[in-house]
Amino acid sequence: MAAALFANGEIATVKPSANSRYSAVYSEVQNSRLDHPLTLPSVLRSAFKVVDGPPSSAAGNPDEIAKLFPSMFGQPSAMLVPGASGDTPLVQGLKIGVVLSGGQAPGGHNVISGIFDYLQDHCKGSTVYGFRGGPAGIMKCKYVILTPEYIYPYRNQGGFDMICSGRDKIETPEQFKQAEETALKLELEGLDVIDDSNTNACLLAENFRSKNLKTRVIGCPKTIDGDLKCKEVPTSFGFDTACKIFAEMIGNVMVDARSTGKYYHFVRLMGRAASHITLECALQTHPNITLIGEEVAANKQTLKSVTDYIADVICKRAELGHNYGVILIPEGLIDFIPEVQHLIAELNEILAHETVDEAGLWKKKLEPQSLQLFELLPPAIQDQLMLERDPHGNVQVAKIETEKMLIQMVETELELRKRAGVYKGHFKGQSHFFGYEGRCGLPSNFDATYCYALGYAAGALLESGKTGFISSVGNLAAPVEEWTIGGTALTSLMDVERRHGKFKPVIKKAMVELEGAPFKKFASMREEWAHNNRYINPGPIQFVGPASYKTNHTLLLELGAQV
Amino acid sequence: MAAALFANGEIATVKPSANSRYSAVYSEVQNSRLDHPLTLPSVLRSAFKVVDGPPSSAAGNPDEIAKLFPSMFGQPSAMLVPGASGDTPLVQGLKIGVVLSGGQAPGGHNVISGIFDYLQDHCKGSTVYGFRGGPAGIMKCKYVILTPEYIYPYRNQGGFDMICSGRDKIETPEQFKQAEETALKLELEGLDVIDDSNTNACLLAENFRSKNLKTRVIGCPKTIDGDLKCKEVPTSFGFDTACKIFAEMIGNVMVDARSTGKYYHFVRLMGRAASHITLECALQTHPNITLIGEEVAANKQTLKSVTDYIADVICKRAELGHNYGVILIPEGLIDFIPEVQHLIAELNEILAHETVDEAGLWKKKLEPQSLQLFELLPPAIQDQLMLERDPHGNVQVAKIETEKMLIQMVETELELRKRAGVYKGHFKGQSHFFGYEGRCGLPSNFDATYCYALGYAAGALLESGKTGFISSVGNLAAPVEEWTIGGTALTSLMDVERRHGKFKPVIKKAMVELEGAPFKKFASMREEWAHNNRYINPGPIQFVGPASYKTNHTLLLELGAQV
Repeated sequence: MAAALFANGEIATVKPSANSRYSAVYSEVQNSRLDHPLTLPSVLRSAFKVVDGPPSSAAGNPDEIAKLFPSMFGQPSAMLVPGASGDTPLVQGLKIGVVLSGGQAPGGHNVISGIFDYLQDHCKGSTVYGFRGGPAGIMKCKYVILTPEYIYPYRNQGGFDMICSGRDKIETPEQFKQAEETALKLELEGLDVIDDSNTNACLLAENFRSKNLKTRVIGCPKTIDGDLKCKEVPTSFGFDTACKIFAEMIGNVMVDARSTGKYYHFVRLMGRAASHITLECALQTHPNITLIGEEVAANKQTLKSVTDYIADVICKRAELGHNYGVILIPEGLIDFIPEVQHLIAELNEILAHETVDEAGLWKKKLEPQSLQLFELLPPAIQDQLMLERDPHGNVQVAKIETEKMLIQMVETELELRKRAGVYKGHFKGQSHFFGYEGRCGLPSNFDATYCYALGYAAGALLESGKTGFISSVGNLAAPVEEWTIGGTALTSLMDVERRHGKFKPVIKKAMVELEGAPFKKFASMREEWAHNNRYINPGPIQFVGPASYKTNHTLLLELGAQV
Repeated sequence: MAAALFANGEIATVKPSANSRYSAVYSEVQNSRLDHPLTLPSVLRSAFKVVDGPPSSAAGNPDEIAKLFPSMFGQPSAMLVPGASGDTPLVQGLKIGVVLSGGQAPGGHNVISGIFDYLQDHCKGSTVYGFRGGPAGIMKCKYVILTPEYIYPYRNQGGFDMICSGRDKIETPEQFKQAEETALKLELEGLDVIDDSNTNACLLAENFRSKNLKTRVIGCPKTIDGDLKCKEVPTSFGFDTACKIFAEMIGNVMVDARSTGKYYHFVRLMGRAASHITLECALQTHPNITLIGEEVAANKQTLKSVTDYIADVICKRAELGHNYGVILIPEGLIDFIPEVQHLIAELNEILAHETVDEAGLWKKKLEPQSLQLFELLPPAIQDQLMLERDPHGNVQVAKIETEKMLIQMVETELELRKRAGVYKGHFKGQSHFFGYEGRCGLPSNFDATYCYALGYAAGALLESGKTGFISSVGNLAAPVEEWTIGGTALTSLMDVERRHGKFKPVIKKAMVELEGAPFKKFASMREEWAHNNRYINPGPIQFVGPASYKTNHTLLLELGAQV
């Protein structure tokens, strides 16, 4: 090896392909991933059959779910077990569609590769349609026929650009009609919906079945936010890679903080609804302060109490001689603070009907406590609350730079404490937001393998005639060979919410459980992390060598494994 | 391997150590780097002698440099060549100090390891003093004695936290006096200054020599910005790693941009004085638009012309159906725009003497063209220009969020074009700043190896009695074995600048050369990158396997190698 060290050579190479992406050059790491061998769970590597479990119910309000999904409700879970299938063989040559929906998550291309390879291995002569640009591609019948050559450049690569994604929903009768037309036109036996809202997959399954279409629908659990999971689906794909990318950056910032000794880094992390990403990054890196939205909500904290908590740790650290630190903040923090939600609701209402006068008379419309909170906010944040509105006139919470807001509020608080003589340190805040960087990274070995299994399993479920299922791969703390493969009835994950006087089916977002193992481990260590420096720098994701075959703390802890 | 895939186990392990950092846990990747074997250039692996080249001069104004550095000026370069040294052997057991100065750069710990190992290998019984917290540690004689156990946990690790850094300068007679006292007290034979301003190392060398102290001073080229380089010193350490970390993030954002198809990502990159980082990241990732400060200055561009250039590319891309893209912006961009510099100078002057009135009457003091420019700026940037001032009352240019400014200006321009009917696309900007994430990453194999050689060479130079030199490692496009090792007289890199009526010695920052190979390669490809999508995703730095032994494009191109 030594002889070749740093010798000059091609940094990026070109491989020929019919595909437009691939007419560009790939980096050496991208190239090396193309032929990365993926291990399949043992059960998928020889003859297997699909066996049914007991009938399922719903996560809540089974009667309403049964009414909403008459054809789907109660389906038993399916499990793949070794052995030849006793069923009549299905028609050779299936026609299957795949679609990516919503935000990117590393591994999506491997789900598609998994389905494709399953069909190549088990159903010769199949056709796979990749619907372009998300659900709109189904409605407009806009697709590309996937071939081995077309798929190859995307194997183990990040992003969703093989067929791109979109955020359209199929929900009106007209839209369902369009989807049906596509299913009929292409004679689809099946459709794999890769999404974080598997509710739509289930509605589509129900709709196709009720119209007597042969098109079956299987969902796959996607979201870097990690909030689509349940007993049967231990994790959503992309979470592992995204957290590792964020943790790499956080670890670097920590070493920087310790080396300079003069900055507090406030790091906001993507993940608006739940704080899983923030919690996982904390477990990987051991920051001084970590805010978990679910805990903030459970304790009914105010913005002031959050600020005080941060200031308290900073004061204590100053006494210990540390005028630096790293603080993790979930993107959705302010959604978890009741008084802020209240203020925002009032602002939405007032601004819809009032003119905002320079003199600030409009503020008199605010309730006293909301006014007090508004006045507490830094001017830049006041501006963001007044200006950044979506087309419906609502405040765009995701655009509020919570990390900058907290820096300013903490600074003000520390100034007061300094004047009162109880704080003698010096404080300088640096803000960061890590989000887009993590959605399209090259999938970790875990996500690459997990997604391939999810896709392969989806192929098996579709072939076996299942519909309204989510592909589920379990036993993930064990070696890949021992992973279990099955499908779970989507209705069994559902509950209803009352919206506009109607019941609406939802798969509830899985929030951080304050009694769960990941949070409890964090809670048991955070005081130690706060005052001492227990930083860990996970380093960049490695594809070979040390740590390249590790998964994340959250998953392992939830599965009861030691980390 | 497959059997162990994702099996549960320790993610981070603890190794015992007397060192405080090391009482914490390390990630598996950090651990794996500790024992990473480093190759030394052949010349350092067996007997060598130091041979002198011809006498040197200065980069400019040799007469003034000769006056400023009477003891140092004219020293010949030194080169290590194979063979036993004919000189009288020096005293065994040297006392050597090391100090880290200025901002972090990946590899600093390896420079120290290199010196330490050199002394262990060649000068048994030596003592290495690590001055703590930068040059202040020399002045206050605050140090730690480095031992193998103390150094071990920092081998191949990022950051400067082994002894920490600082930004103090040794420049007043009082401060030189303090440095002398430390040198005398510790009986230092040598001092290695790891800094981006090697002017200070040279001043210290001159001072010690003029006072007849035995303490010799050697500098090492450090800065992620890549602007400390010359013929003899082909690159500064840390540049390679930092660019690779930024390029990883940029590559991910590119895949995201292409997958969603709806955002323009404006990425500001650290590196205020020169645009090397931005240029290198462009060569690694092929963004649609890259602004190079040196070119903007050479073309005397205005903020409006920069905005128009970006808007032109966006309009052209919209015609091609691409309403997304990635744009790289050097941190120091606005420093390169003459009219902005002019405005800032006027603002500094006005705000030092005038009260800023709400009605804006103060603006009448601005020259017409500055007023016009000021009015063109988005309000948030106007605020930053008015509010963010350093203790001397000057605008803090580094705090100006240029990426957000450009997003707003481009948005306004595109709005005008839309109204004029010449732009029919849709534009959404997303801003990013990558800086701190790159300063303390785990050093790439290149930086780890390069720094170790720099440190080892510094040890050899100090032992051979050299002073006022910078450690120089050359032939970097060849395998490590063939790297050359030497020292270059710091005075030969110097010129003078006239400041406050006095000549001040400076090692000029190496700017991006518009006639240099890296810029020319970029310039020849940027139109292709602008309109088509030639994105490359370099992926995370790998320590083993593919691409783990590649260095950066800038270095290879400057050395005349093919990339």
